[in-house]
Amino acid sequence: MTLAIHAPTDYGPWASIDLTAITHNLAWMRRRMPHARSNAHPPRLWAVVKADAYGHGLHHALGALGASDGVAVATLGDVLRVRELGWHRPVLLLSAAGLDPSALGDPACGELHIVIDDNATLQRLEHMPFSLPRVHAWLRYAGHLQSQGFDDTGYPHAFWRLQALAQNGRLAAAGHLHHYAMAEDAQALATEQQAFARVTAGLPGPHSTGNSAALCGVAPGPIHPAGHWLRCGLALYGASALPGRTGAQLGLRPAMSLHARLLVVRRVAAGQSVGYGDSYRAAQDTHIGVVGIGYGHGLPRNLWRHGQLLAGKAGRPVPLAGRVAMDCLTVDLGSHPTEKAGDIITLWGQSPAGAALPVEAAAQACDTIAAEMLTCLTARLPLLAYPKAA
Amino acid sequence: MTLAIHAPTDYGPWASIDLTAITHNLAWMRRRMPHARSNAHPPRLWAVVKADAYGHGLHHALGALGASDGVAVATLGDVLRVRELGWHRPVLLLSAAGLDPSALGDPACGELHIVIDDNATLQRLEHMPFSLPRVHAWLRYAGHLQSQGFDDTGYPHAFWRLQALAQNGRLAAAGHLHHYAMAEDAQALATEQQAFARVTAGLPGPHSTGNSAALCGVAPGPIHPAGHWLRCGLALYGASALPGRTGAQLGLRPAMSLHARLLVVRRVAAGQSVGYGDSYRAAQDTHIGVVGIGYGHGLPRNLWRHGQLLAGKAGRPVPLAGRVAMDCLTVDLGSHPTEKAGDIITLWGQSPAGAALPVEAAAQACDTIAAEMLTCLTARLPLLAYPKAA
Repeated sequence: MTLAIHAPTDYGPWASIDLTAITHNLAWMRRRMPHARSNAHPPRLWAVVKADAYGHGLHHALGALGASDGVAVATLGDVLRVRELGWHRPVLLLSAAGLDPSALGDPACGELHIVIDDNATLQRLEHMPFSLPRVHAWLRYAGHLQSQGFDDTGYPHAFWRLQALAQNGRLAAAGHLHHYAMAEDAQALATEQQAFARVTAGLPGPHSTGNSAALCGVAPGPIHPAGHWLRCGLALYGASALPGRTGAQLGLRPAMSLHARLLVVRRVAAGQSVGYGDSYRAAQDTHIGVVGIGYGHGLPRNLWRHGQLLAGKAGRPVPLAGRVAMDCLTVDLGSHPTEKAGDIITLWGQSPAGAALPVEAAAQACDTIAAEMLTCLTARLPLLAYPKAA
Repeated sequence: MTLAIHAPTDYGPWASIDLTAITHNLAWMRRRMPHARSNAHPPRLWAVVKADAYGHGLHHALGALGASDGVAVATLGDVLRVRELGWHRPVLLLSAAGLDPSALGDPACGELHIVIDDNATLQRLEHMPFSLPRVHAWLRYAGHLQSQGFDDTGYPHAFWRLQALAQNGRLAAAGHLHHYAMAEDAQALATEQQAFARVTAGLPGPHSTGNSAALCGVAPGPIHPAGHWLRCGLALYGASALPGRTGAQLGLRPAMSLHARLLVVRRVAAGQSVGYGDSYRAAQDTHIGVVGIGYGHGLPRNLWRHGQLLAGKAGRPVPLAGRVAMDCLTVDLGSHPTEKAGDIITLWGQSPAGAALPVEAAAQACDTIAAEMLTCLTARLPLLAYPKAA
């Protein structure tokens, strides 16, 4: 384990992206699919790469997703970006709300799947004076989430309108899509799945369901009909959507390690305060380490209250000491630290010697979820992926 | 007021940057300096543009800082970036910790001021086998913040070592720098100022002090000796570093307005839940609006607990309804909303018709400070500045 070599040449922070972890997680997911245990039609898999591949860098992640059947993005700009990056398989645009249908006909989009989650978008498709023979449309069921899509009373009629467009050759196909609201709870998930089965009963077309929590959960899940597409986001990157369990505990491999450098080590006497607004006071004589990462890099400022980091190659756990500033934070290294200026600090992921600090722990210290920790990193933080492409 | 015209052509969110506000705030700061009330030497002003100008876009902000004497940045990369962007006046690098002195001699750096905050950096300057005739060095006093710089016992000796380098022509000059820990408290600020005056008593060279809280505070501040440089960051962008007061209440003009689009308006019946994990339940029949911005754009996810937004051009205040997702959030538009899909939503700043929602209020709803709200926006959020350069 020598993560240390994947470091920038200055003293700034960086995120190290392990591409083999993403490939591993994709394979892990395929093995867990119910169909892997039967001879039924295996579902296809959308790898969700929105929000710059959950903060891992879209251009990096695509290179690790060769075994995925397609990728899912949130904006039309990202559809074009994955095409520019050489992705030739299908792309799913997770919402077409507000989009002009003519933009969807751009040949640069390739085989495009779109999600229809409101009546206005459906009407625009019905009124377009042209056909979109490469566009597959998925109607979204509102389900328990309720924020987007069609509810029980409106869904069947909306689907038949979409299906008419497909039958007339104005769209390539029409399908059914559901996004779970509470997939981390097996009972609630089963209820959501039953509701979706009920609303789509007797309707033609393929289904798409999923999210990482549903794929990683304890419930085995139903055997899906032929043509099913599952969607997976957070778990691809090795993080867990299940409360109380880390990605590593599920068998996933975390793809990101967030690192910074120890800039300065200072002795501080008992009783002395450190940082803005007297936010930390040394209980005894100790050493404070200044670490070159702060909220200006997208690290949540409120990590300071309960957070800990790994210091040095070995990854010794040390607590934060005082408020996180824009460009740096401080840790309490104790009375006899062995770490010195220039040493690597690990905010989450793996220390150079392999000590692990789950991103889920950092998220818990910030009262949030792993997905926010990963996606909120700003453009000021370089993403260094390994192994490098041949 | 027609902010609406400064909008992207798709349905994504954006930040609108008012360059005239930055120019106004700089002039406001100059008028407030103690010397504006006397015939003493006016101090010079460093405009702090680290963290991409507090999230406003470095390339945008520089164009509004023509009346500033210099700009301050956090990394050597940013020194080179402001030079590439055509900034010809001095640049202050806020910490030289860990840097190789040879990098500071790059002619592309121009007149460079650096802050020395640890002994290792001072030693590297003493051992460099060359001179840096364009580099001005500022020794940092640790003061009450304690995280970086030299303390009372070490400061004078370290300064004379730096001064020797300046006298031998190996550096351009040596000065004294202090960063306040508690400038929002007039009494604590006075104590910090006295400590700095005490430690630098009898030592030659210019001083640099400041931060926005000190410049905006109620204390008039001392008349500084000739050659003084003040530093100002957050207030330049129109936000307040003083608890309980907004930038606008101080006389500043907020430079950023954060906007998104209303994507969908849905009727929701009393008792129905919305969003992940049943995080919101409608108390009565109402309308839920889906807004196209989420934590994947850098908006803190925990805004949902106490946050409110401005809906439509008029900017009607509406509460968030349920957890913020990666790409969208939901608001409760009430039983008879006039807003419709496509309408502008204002997260902070000004609605198109001029209704104001201070970034300080959003920060308070997230239990953090305005500086974090502004700097944490990710690269997925376009920054649109106006007026456009002629």
